Amino acid sequence: MERSLEKQKKWEQRTDLPLMLAAVAFFVAYALPVLKPEIPAFWVEVCDWAQIIIWAMFIIDYLVRFSLAPHRREFIVNNWFDLLIITLPMLRPLRLLRLLTVLRMFDRHAGNALRGKVTSYTIGTTLIVLVTAAIGILEIERKLPDSQIKDFSAALWWAITTVTTVGYGDTVPVSESGRFLAIALMIFGIALLGLVTGLLSSYLVEKVSETEDKTEYKILKQLEAQNQELKRLSEEVRYLREQLATAPTKE
Amino acid sequence: MERSLEKQKKWEQRTDLPLMLAAVAFFVAYALPVLKPEIPAFWVEVCDWAQIIIWAMFIIDYLVRFSLAPHRREFIVNNWFDLLIITLPMLRPLRLLRLLTVLRMFDRHAGNALRGKVTSYTIGTTLIVLVTAAIGILEIERKLPDSQIKDFSAALWWAITTVTTVGYGDTVPVSESGRFLAIALMIFGIALLGLVTGLLSSYLVEKVSETEDKTEYKILKQLEAQNQELKRLSEEVRYLREQLATAPTKE
Amino acid sequence: MERSLEKQKKWEQRTDLPLMLAAVAFFVAYALPVLKPEIPAFWVEVCDWAQIIIWAMFIIDYLVRFSLAPHRREFIVNNWFDLLIITLPMLRPLRLLRLLTVLRMFDRHAGNALRGKVTSYTIGTTLIVLVTAAIGILEIERKLPDSQIKDFSAALWWAITTVTTVGYGDTVPVSESGRFLAIALMIFGIALLGLVTGLLSSYLVEKVSETEDKTEYKILKQLEAQNQELKRLSEEVRYLREQLATAPTKE
Amino acid sequence: MERSLEKQKKWEQRTDLPLMLAAVAFFVAYALPVLKPEIPAFWVEVCDWAQIIIWAMFIIDYLVRFSLAPHRREFIVNNWFDLLIITLPMLRPLRLLRLLTVLRMFDRHAGNALRGKVTSYTIGTTLIVLVTAAIGILEIERKLPDSQIKDFSAALWWAITTVTTVGYGDTVPVSESGRFLAIALMIFGIALLGLVTGLLSSYLVEKVSETEDKTEYKILKQLEAQNQELKRLSEEVRYLREQLATAPTKE
Repeated sequence: MERSLEKQKKWEQRTDLPLMLAAVAFFVAYALPVLKPEIPAFWVEVCDWAQIIIWAMFIIDYLVRFSLAPHRREFIVNNWFDLLIITLPMLRPLRLLRLLTVLRMFDRHAGNALRGKVTSYTIGTTLIVLVTAAIGILEIERKLPDSQIKDFSAALWWAITTVTTVGYGDTVPVSESGRFLAIALMIFGIALLGLVTGLLSSYLVEKVSETEDKTEYKILKQLEAQNQELKRLSEEVRYLREQLATAPTKE
Repeated sequence: MERSLEKQKKWEQRTDLPLMLAAVAFFVAYALPVLKPEIPAFWVEVCDWAQIIIWAMFIIDYLVRFSLAPHRREFIVNNWFDLLIITLPMLRPLRLLRLLTVLRMFDRHAGNALRGKVTSYTIGTTLIVLVTAAIGILEIERKLPDSQIKDFSAALWWAITTVTTVGYGDTVPVSESGRFLAIALMIFGIALLGLVTGLLSSYLVEKVSETEDKTEYKILKQLEAQNQELKRLSEEVRYLREQLATAPTKE
Repeated sequence: MERSLEKQKKWEQRTDLPLMLAAVAFFVAYALPVLKPEIPAFWVEVCDWAQIIIWAMFIIDYLVRFSLAPHRREFIVNNWFDLLIITLPMLRPLRLLRLLTVLRMFDRHAGNALRGKVTSYTIGTTLIVLVTAAIGILEIERKLPDSQIKDFSAALWWAITTVTTVGYGDTVPVSESGRFLAIALMIFGIALLGLVTGLLSSYLVEKVSETEDKTEYKILKQLEAQNQELKRLSEEVRYLREQLATAPTKE
Repeated sequence: MERSLEKQKKWEQRTDLPLMLAAVAFFVAYALPVLKPEIPAFWVEVCDWAQIIIWAMFIIDYLVRFSLAPHRREFIVNNWFDLLIITLPMLRPLRLLRLLTVLRMFDRHAGNALRGKVTSYTIGTTLIVLVTAAIGILEIERKLPDSQIKDFSAALWWAITTVTTVGYGDTVPVSESGRFLAIALMIFGIALLGLVTGLLSSYLVEKVSETEDKTEYKILKQLEAQNQELKRLSEEVRYLREQLATAPTKE
């Protein structure tokens, strides 16, 4: 068991950077034919093959990690998202989210400040999710006759009006797959709203509790008073002891 | 009074599982003719009868619990939702929410973690509410000529755009009853937003207060220092006493 | 100064109930011709006169309170909303909000629980604001040719989709005054969202801090240990003193 | 280094008021031709020149502060927004946000109450942002044939429905630049929602923790009891010492 855990860590350390690069490459290979449909057919094919190869890499990585995992059931539960995007071809646009692994770089630069870290992650994740959703919806909806999403600009506009829950309704997905993507984006939007609010309100709660008088402050004052009393008492006892030490000699 | 409380508990323990199953059965009997309108008329009738029978069961359960309740006025107030969905035929789709009793199963598996429990309940409730709202709106709006909600997929899409408060406006209820359902869903959506935010911000408030220096931490440090001082003092006093115990013998 | 404050309180105590009733009467006189436009012209005129008389009452009450106020500038600042709805005829629908004074009744029934009180006020205020906005928008928009709000049901539907920030866009005010009302409702909606979230998250923060291990808990444990140590020390000192009291006699 | 920091402060103190006035003047020069397109061409030109001159002032101020800054890289990072609105002509409407410097006046009047300060800033910022967004979108969209935003009233209506995330969709930007502005407004809307919620929930968390029994309160009670015990102990020890002081004389 111990040894398999060690092997697992080694595997993850070695594959960390290559998989990050693979995620970036997958993003490019996916985005290019969607954003520039006028590129020669040869390059489209190259991108297709690149996607398939990188997808195979993701599968191999998953299988190796699975075989090395000490608790296999736990591994499947913890990596449900990886399993989902590897197996379901319908969720192919979500594979772009492998790009989120790039955010791990924040870990290296980040100090202790939890809130700063959460803020960085939130902004990074939001940007990647928005671009991913825009490219995904563009691929799905562009060729549909009654779609309003025909270029990247409209796609990004749709993604942002959705994630902020503004929802004008001027650009709306009309296909089943497009709606799936939209639902994922809405759930992310709700979580984003919660995070922004949570960050701001945790900040306010802390700042307010620092500046305003509170029970805690009274406790601190009481403790300081107690410390003084204790010191006085110690002094008294020390004096007592000295007296006692000299008393017998007096006698 | 004591005895009626005992009887009430016994009744609830005995009917817990059957009522859960009845709620699931009601859900199936309600959903089937709505989702599959092409099933033979015989099965539609079976479903209709099943709904009526289960509804009667709900009424009987309510009346028994009412007759056993020690404080009847309190009982009516606490079970206002049950009374509402039993009496008003207009709110029939809301009877599907009896399915929420299935979530009681979380209680058995859940540990101490309140937040984990609230998260489980929130996700479970949201899923049931969404499916319930989608089936309900589909039944109400499908046959209306100017409705945009003609199949389950559109109904679920409407439910999700509503609950997340995105509200594109591409699928909107047009009948009075449909709007009633929509209002219930919007109120749930507001509460859901509040819960998600509350969960995330309570988590952040806690994490931040753990990692960052705060008054509490200073208090803890003070207390630890004080404890050491107290122990030193105790030692001193014990020494004093020993001296005193031996002093008379010296004499 | 002291005496004018006393007079002010007396005036407010005496006019409290009559003004509440006047607010209810104003609501009825305003709502009736809007909700039932088919009532005879005579009753419409009665309602018009009732509104004017009650409006005059509000003005007189404002002027009396102003003349009794010890600090007049402060009074104007604190009662800016009263001044606004009394003077601007454009904001006439907002006069219905005088009905909110009825919520003062909660103060009598409410116990200590702040959260329960805030919840009651929030629900009460929301209901009154929604009905007020619906009646107001109906009066403003019903006669406009391109308006989608022609009956109370549509007006309430609009009010609820707006206050929850869902904003389908299927019913939208088209006149300047209607949009003014809508903006007031949206601001209320934002505050409502904040309140619901705040209530839920303050509840969660508290519950979580109660159930989970925290610095505070450690502090409490330390204090309990300290208390034991202190008692032991006291005992020791008492014994010491007894010894000392008997020692001289031994000698 | 020290000297340049001193110089920087001096520069900022001297330019504070002129830059505030310049921001107001820029606002007027920008808003006038947009809100009153019927003014004579001469005045339009005056406004154009005023804008260019004030823009040049902003650039000079930026360059002087840059040259005085002790850490230049830090300066660029901290003043990214200034650099952005100075350099990108596309973001010209955002220059109106320099008006936010007027809010610095709150600092003079504000007391200790952090929450009051945040509330003032939030309301002030929201008003300026809304008016800025309305004027900006009006300038961008008014001349477009398929735009629904043709006057200031419609522009403000759009801005408010967007910032509250209601998003009816009855007035929507149709140009690229308009959508850019809309996205900035939506991001502000999300932050506004978070702030309102944070303010309300920090208020509720504090109020509730004050009124309800909590661990902290128990700690305070324990400490008070302990202090009494300590005093009693001190008394005892003092008595002991007095006895000890008299004991030898007895002998």
